[in-house]
Amino acid sequence: MSGRTARRRVLRVTLPGDGRSGRRAAQADLLAREEPLGIRVDGTALTMTMRTPGDDLELAAGFLVSEAVIRSAADIAEIKLCDGTACGHADQNGADHNGMGNIADVTLAPGLVVTPGARRNFLTTSACGVCGKASIEDICVLPPVPLAADTARFAPDVLAALPDRLRDAQRVFSRTGGLHAAGLFTADGELIAAREDVGRHNAVDKVVGWALLGGRLPLAGCGLLVSGRASFELVQKAVLAGIPLLAAVSAPSSLAVDLAGQADLTLVGFLRGPSMNVYTGAHRLSP
Amino acid sequence: MSGRTARRRVLRVTLPGDGRSGRRAAQADLLAREEPLGIRVDGTALTMTMRTPGDDLELAAGFLVSEAVIRSAADIAEIKLCDGTACGHADQNGADHNGMGNIADVTLAPGLVVTPGARRNFLTTSACGVCGKASIEDICVLPPVPLAADTARFAPDVLAALPDRLRDAQRVFSRTGGLHAAGLFTADGELIAAREDVGRHNAVDKVVGWALLGGRLPLAGCGLLVSGRASFELVQKAVLAGIPLLAAVSAPSSLAVDLAGQADLTLVGFLRGPSMNVYTGAHRLSP
Repeated sequence: MSGRTARRRVLRVTLPGDGRSGRRAAQADLLAREEPLGIRVDGTALTMTMRTPGDDLELAAGFLVSEAVIRSAADIAEIKLCDGTACGHADQNGADHNGMGNIADVTLAPGLVVTPGARRNFLTTSACGVCGKASIEDICVLPPVPLAADTARFAPDVLAALPDRLRDAQRVFSRTGGLHAAGLFTADGELIAAREDVGRHNAVDKVVGWALLGGRLPLAGCGLLVSGRASFELVQKAVLAGIPLLAAVSAPSSLAVDLAGQADLTLVGFLRGPSMNVYTGAHRLSP
Repeated sequence: MSGRTARRRVLRVTLPGDGRSGRRAAQADLLAREEPLGIRVDGTALTMTMRTPGDDLELAAGFLVSEAVIRSAADIAEIKLCDGTACGHADQNGADHNGMGNIADVTLAPGLVVTPGARRNFLTTSACGVCGKASIEDICVLPPVPLAADTARFAPDVLAALPDRLRDAQRVFSRTGGLHAAGLFTADGELIAAREDVGRHNAVDKVVGWALLGGRLPLAGCGLLVSGRASFELVQKAVLAGIPLLAAVSAPSSLAVDLAGQADLTLVGFLRGPSMNVYTGAHRLSP
């Protein structure tokens, strides 16, 4: 786990008050590591993301699912991490890169090509090329497969117990306070996979990539819990992975709710203590 | 302010317990709006961001500062919002777009061209084209101007009072719980500008864009407070705007601290109650 954290010196400042005197003390602090990961597909750079190192292949695979490039492990011919050592490229300067600049190198199965999501081409694919007007259909990369066929049911008391379970599984957060988490659960509340990252979208991609590489996609009957808010992007990732329920500890955005409703995803927000808000797909709540 | 929020139906579920019976009640909920904004420079689509509508020109201008494309208001020949009405393009279908798909249309001053940040070209510009190794220098778009010349001093008790002031200025958050905020302060703790957005990077871009359009860049002597965590990206935005101090309510990442140290930015984290962590640039703290 040391690769996911980094130690830095910090000056801890406490103001005087309540009978105590002010204090300034230098101490060591444990931080969540943030480093770039490049994702290369068939030899071409596709994107770069700032992420917490670890589960990098899962992150790359999950990102490709979220961009609707791949749908199953069979769509990947090869996936490997590429750094100076693995590529056989010695560091000419002898400088210590501290692992920065890793590349996830993906070779797609024969016949597959990268067709970046419509979202990325939003400005050029929208109906009106000048004014750029668009509807949800124009900016998302959702497949035509809806979640309506997923008959999973979730009990509210099971959902209410999820945040504590995810927090228990967050090994790095408790030490750094700096990481988002995503957890995949069964409808019975069993935690199947949990991942952490400085970016919440990365945490979700890591979970989805884990499922893809294990041949578990689509994730029918499962629920996904995220530690922060629910955005349009996170709803889209859940739907593309075939997950019928997305729960967030905080608030969703308007577009997250709209897309969830359209895809028949059950979207839960403000999942805290004994209560929650169910924005869409309430039919999946057991009585 | 209605354009920044949207009302949706929600099923509020409360579990039984502590003597109360369980409850399920349909009610209206106010959400932060999230919609795409395209940024077009000299007629070419540059990027698309999911943002909370409002302050869109500031967002576009601030984004261009953060990408090191522009540095002052004089670098912009024209900046305007373009939607169906403004462009004179009638909606052929009569469909209600709800304001989605707005475009910020920027024309740069003569002689200026878009040179996307090195960060975006990371995979192709890194020293080793195969393994993609990079240092901070390779992934950031920082100008050679350091902040070391900024002699501003900040008193810890002034800093400790900032989160409450920013929260007071957050008009939408209190109603939706769904927005990040960024606030610009003088060294005396006076709030100069505050912006909210579903994306924390957008909230910062809006503040920076506000300053640019008002001829206030670089923001020497100022402090920037963000409601969440401090990432590499936010540190870079602060440095590019010439802001000598960045404070975050939550944790910074390792790379945020490293970049802040290199740029001589004062980076404060965990700014809560009477205490704070000063990661870099502690020389700007008054005794």
